[in-house]
Amino acid sequence: MGQNIFVPREVDATEPRVAASPETVKRLVGLGFSVVVEKDAGAASRILDGDYVGAGATIGKAGDAAKADVVLKVRRPSESELKTYKPGTIVLAAMDPYGHESSVAAMARAGVSAFCMEFMPRITRAQSMDILSSQANLAGYQAVIDAAAEYDRALPMMMTAAGTVPAAKVFVMGAGVAGLQAIATARRLGAIVTATDVRPAAKEQVASLGAKFIAVEDEEFKAAETAGGYAKEMSKEYQAKQAALIAEHIAKQDIVITTALIPGRPAPRLVSSAMVAAMKAGSVIVDLAVERGGNVEGAVPGQVVSSENGVKIVGHLNVPGRVSASASLLYAKNLYAFLETMVDKEAKTVVLNPEEELVKATLLTHGGKIVHPAFASVEVEE
Amino acid sequence: MGQNIFVPREVDATEPRVAASPETVKRLVGLGFSVVVEKDAGAASRILDGDYVGAGATIGKAGDAAKADVVLKVRRPSESELKTYKPGTIVLAAMDPYGHESSVAAMARAGVSAFCMEFMPRITRAQSMDILSSQANLAGYQAVIDAAAEYDRALPMMMTAAGTVPAAKVFVMGAGVAGLQAIATARRLGAIVTATDVRPAAKEQVASLGAKFIAVEDEEFKAAETAGGYAKEMSKEYQAKQAALIAEHIAKQDIVITTALIPGRPAPRLVSSAMVAAMKAGSVIVDLAVERGGNVEGAVPGQVVSSENGVKIVGHLNVPGRVSASASLLYAKNLYAFLETMVDKEAKTVVLNPEEELVKATLLTHGGKIVHPAFASVEVEE
Repeated sequence: MGQNIFVPREVDATEPRVAASPETVKRLVGLGFSVVVEKDAGAASRILDGDYVGAGATIGKAGDAAKADVVLKVRRPSESELKTYKPGTIVLAAMDPYGHESSVAAMARAGVSAFCMEFMPRITRAQSMDILSSQANLAGYQAVIDAAAEYDRALPMMMTAAGTVPAAKVFVMGAGVAGLQAIATARRLGAIVTATDVRPAAKEQVASLGAKFIAVEDEEFKAAETAGGYAKEMSKEYQAKQAALIAEHIAKQDIVITTALIPGRPAPRLVSSAMVAAMKAGSVIVDLAVERGGNVEGAVPGQVVSSENGVKIVGHLNVPGRVSASASLLYAKNLYAFLETMVDKEAKTVVLNPEEELVKATLLTHGGKIVHPAFASVEVEE
Repeated sequence: MGQNIFVPREVDATEPRVAASPETVKRLVGLGFSVVVEKDAGAASRILDGDYVGAGATIGKAGDAAKADVVLKVRRPSESELKTYKPGTIVLAAMDPYGHESSVAAMARAGVSAFCMEFMPRITRAQSMDILSSQANLAGYQAVIDAAAEYDRALPMMMTAAGTVPAAKVFVMGAGVAGLQAIATARRLGAIVTATDVRPAAKEQVASLGAKFIAVEDEEFKAAETAGGYAKEMSKEYQAKQAALIAEHIAKQDIVITTALIPGRPAPRLVSSAMVAAMKAGSVIVDLAVERGGNVEGAVPGQVVSSENGVKIVGHLNVPGRVSASASLLYAKNLYAFLETMVDKEAKTVVLNPEEELVKATLLTHGGKIVHPAFASVEVEE
């Protein structure tokens, strides 16, 4: 009998995703683990308990976390969940640590080895473990579906006997994984798509998807690409120039989708109230950064609101969770791919090597301490 | 000064469409008409009063109907609206007369010349006047958007570092205008699309859009195509054979969109509760016929309901109204195109010739009588 893996039902009622799929359970069992899945853990992602059982898991209850060597989760464990874990438990989750330093300290106090999956390096061998990419990809798709559902016209050009319906103009701000998928989806639906990003490299990617790139392309822009592929924050001067260009462009758009995030910092404000006010009534803005403070002034987390001039601003929370069945399958694969790198296949146990590159990048707490350099200054004691 | 045309704000609060656009107003004014649009008539279709004024209309109030020679409407006038019209007023609208015979009688009593736009013959020269086609086209598009919004997975196949998200299987029942647009839209979104129809001619159309045709192709099927392009009701035997094939097929689908209507009769029941029960949890059915009794057992008009086994059944009302800004522009063009055929351009008046083919097909009431043969047996007196 190998070590025990526990997959809880997420305690947050707004979280429909689950951290294991029948496919990953089967593989974990194949590696020699004993897997317990909490009853109904996959229900909101359309995975039935019977599917897990068929893959070799047993169905358990929340308290079974106490016997687990490894817990696979979507969201960071709450303090009450931590109380049920034994010290030394390995926890893989989207830890969302910035701004939640006291929760990081709580995980250290509980003695768990908490891995922050968002910190996975964007290197080739870790691509299959990258939860930000897998979830952002689906968020980008869903943002376009949500925009189309709110929009009061059709997206594609339609040539009919009664006249032509013009194609919608869609503008995607931020051409990372979410933005690129939003561009691709809007193009699929026949929209005229433009996009912007602070990284010059994005220009070619945007063009390859059939969209036009919109940016102030000065020296700072050209210098802004960072090694990790993330956007760094631009200067105030650049932001002002870019905002002027965007303001002019945005006033002509039917749909705007914003996807700009800066790790560890509030989302940059890309669309001001004045820009919203310049848009046509009936236009739709989807703010995918609303959980991080929002790219759009006036966006309200969890709500669809209308501006005074009739622009709808969509601020759905947990957008990947809106396509939970797809999101869970990919998220589960990400966690499996990472966990597998830590498995000693002879001993059928997880061996945590703090010096290993991926472990070093993602391990937040270990042995009662906060071990990640980004949180070195956080006090563990209450 | 020519005759007066009045465009009311629809009294039904669930009707966002409007029967004139700035473009059609401009043309009507160009023909010599005086056009009055009720205040805020276009607001829910994103047409401002100022847009109408810019096109040559004046903005008025509901009572201005009393001065109108022609009223352009979306929905059949209510009895209280009829009280404000003068006898002889020409009214163009989606009259929805079947099952509403007393309302047809009321229009006769009011002495209006009521044109039922749904009765426009499906002949080449009347294509531009065909409100069923223009609105069904948008309904077919929106049905796929609504399905995608409810569906808990992505529609396109996505090949990601964490694995492949399979493409959704979409089945479209009824390959008329709505069905064909639903097929095209689902294909745009990358779904694997199949479709069915009782008309053999639809098979080629379905295939030309890249979808596979599913039907029991027996002699009756081959004989079923009618001259008007509409579906006639099939025999009980055929329905049973088709239902067996469909039941088998439907159990494997992720999304089903039903679009089957029979003019003047309740919509055919295509999907039984047993078929719904055989589908996977999380599947989505959109019933575009829900206002006509529904193609799907368990569909509830105006609601999204879940079956016991977790299938979502979407029964939105007035689906073209969900893309009202596009729908109104095309609807307005349809009405304009028909009205123009009745205009004496010298005298700048509308001349109603009851013997003219299109008039004959669409005129419901005239001179205090019900004149359409389909309603010949309806009593006019209360």
